[in-house]
Amino acid sequence: MSDLIITSPSNQRLKSLVALRRRRSREETGLTLIEGFEELSLALEAGVVPRTLYYCPELMLDAGQQLPVVTAVAGRGADTVQLGRGAFEKVAYREGPDGFLAVVDSVTRTCADLTVGPDALTLLCQGVEKPGNLGAMLRTADAAGVEAVIAADPVTDWGNPNLVRASKGTVFSVPVATDTTAATVAWLREQGVALVATTPDTDLDYTDVDYTGPVAVAVGAEKYGLTDEVLQAADHRVRIPMAGRANSLNVATSAAVVIYEAVRQRRQRPSG
Amino acid sequence: MSDLIITSPSNQRLKSLVALRRRRSREETGLTLIEGFEELSLALEAGVVPRTLYYCPELMLDAGQQLPVVTAVAGRGADTVQLGRGAFEKVAYREGPDGFLAVVDSVTRTCADLTVGPDALTLLCQGVEKPGNLGAMLRTADAAGVEAVIAADPVTDWGNPNLVRASKGTVFSVPVATDTTAATVAWLREQGVALVATTPDTDLDYTDVDYTGPVAVAVGAEKYGLTDEVLQAADHRVRIPMAGRANSLNVATSAAVVIYEAVRQRRQRPSG
Repeated sequence: MSDLIITSPSNQRLKSLVALRRRRSREETGLTLIEGFEELSLALEAGVVPRTLYYCPELMLDAGQQLPVVTAVAGRGADTVQLGRGAFEKVAYREGPDGFLAVVDSVTRTCADLTVGPDALTLLCQGVEKPGNLGAMLRTADAAGVEAVIAADPVTDWGNPNLVRASKGTVFSVPVATDTTAATVAWLREQGVALVATTPDTDLDYTDVDYTGPVAVAVGAEKYGLTDEVLQAADHRVRIPMAGRANSLNVATSAAVVIYEAVRQRRQRPSG
Repeated sequence: MSDLIITSPSNQRLKSLVALRRRRSREETGLTLIEGFEELSLALEAGVVPRTLYYCPELMLDAGQQLPVVTAVAGRGADTVQLGRGAFEKVAYREGPDGFLAVVDSVTRTCADLTVGPDALTLLCQGVEKPGNLGAMLRTADAAGVEAVIAADPVTDWGNPNLVRASKGTVFSVPVATDTTAATVAWLREQGVALVATTPDTDLDYTDVDYTGPVAVAVGAEKYGLTDEVLQAADHRVRIPMAGRANSLNVATSAAVVIYEAVRQRRQRPSG
């Protein structure tokens, strides 16, 4: 497994780990963190090879079952470093750490790096602020078989540890990209993808659009929704009917409702 | 407005406010907190009369626009107490407080207190742990026109400040109740409501059920889902198709997907 064991919480190597909680440090190094056995397992299944895996058997829920993962990760060429409990708790960013923390390459794709099939269902998130919302949308995208999720002009980065956590590791299994809104719209056009923009300011229900061909569902920032740039480029502007008093559904909820309508239609009338 | 102005953060009256962050204190007093102008406005629209409104003009985003709400609340018979900035920041439970904090009666309804229409759509949340998830489901219920949301054997209470916040105040506009699972199932039977239970362990897609009559959608705890008690009482056990690697959708996302399928069917084929 590992020859190196760090027990001192003030070890210099650990400081660079803690630094990766800051976006700037992630962007400078091109690295990010995955914490937690479940999240790491999903990333490994998706083919991610960690640069380094920090682990602490004492904190594992089931070290007998979980320690072989350390061996497997080492077998893929990753460094593995065992930490004492105090040292691990210093680098863990969540409460109740379970003894797994990996350093991995950040996802740095742009639209040009994406490959999607002929009838792809994609999700465009423009200007979304909260890492938890992007993470929730990735879980939905993963479950629904969405082929790509593009963050256009995002406020957060795909490597944000809260996003990685909220996504349950699906940020490493769902193809994601970051780009400007203009480049994203241009790319969708090139691919012949219909753009369906969600907005309260329309009379067209989201259920009255055909999602069986190549289609991108677009959702906007939590407070302000989509910009005119996306609304005007859209082939369809759709709304989710709302009966209540509150001004809007959560953005991740809206995305899930529209995406699963697309899934419903595709299961009933498979195209292509 | 208010004759009473509290400027000392150590004022005794403020301690009882801070205590309401604890469930035990909420249960002993039957009171809870609403923080934030938007959340308070929703509660007021829903007819809530605060016991006391604590406000701080200095922290308001737009005191000129918002101070009249204080007068309106006082007009409904609530006490109003102006706080100095230091005092308000002591009692506020969220970062960046906006100068509004109300003490209101907790929601303490059980199923027996609910009145629903003949074709009611209701939501049953069993054992849900996270206040944020219950709050998100209330926003969905509000938007979708769900007539009642029942927490069966909940881990949290409807007065939990994080739930109130995540619900954007809809906990006061959507009829909610708390009860045991047994009492909830019995009540649904009495009302002639069909029970649709979500679970991964079924072959029936959620889109293959008729939701146009009186129906309750049931979702379970984040980790373990619905108990056998609900699954066996259900008229239909349905699954949301999942393509991906992660083990499940978020519970609030699942609820939204199924509820909006019910809304879709009802808009296409209104019954009753």
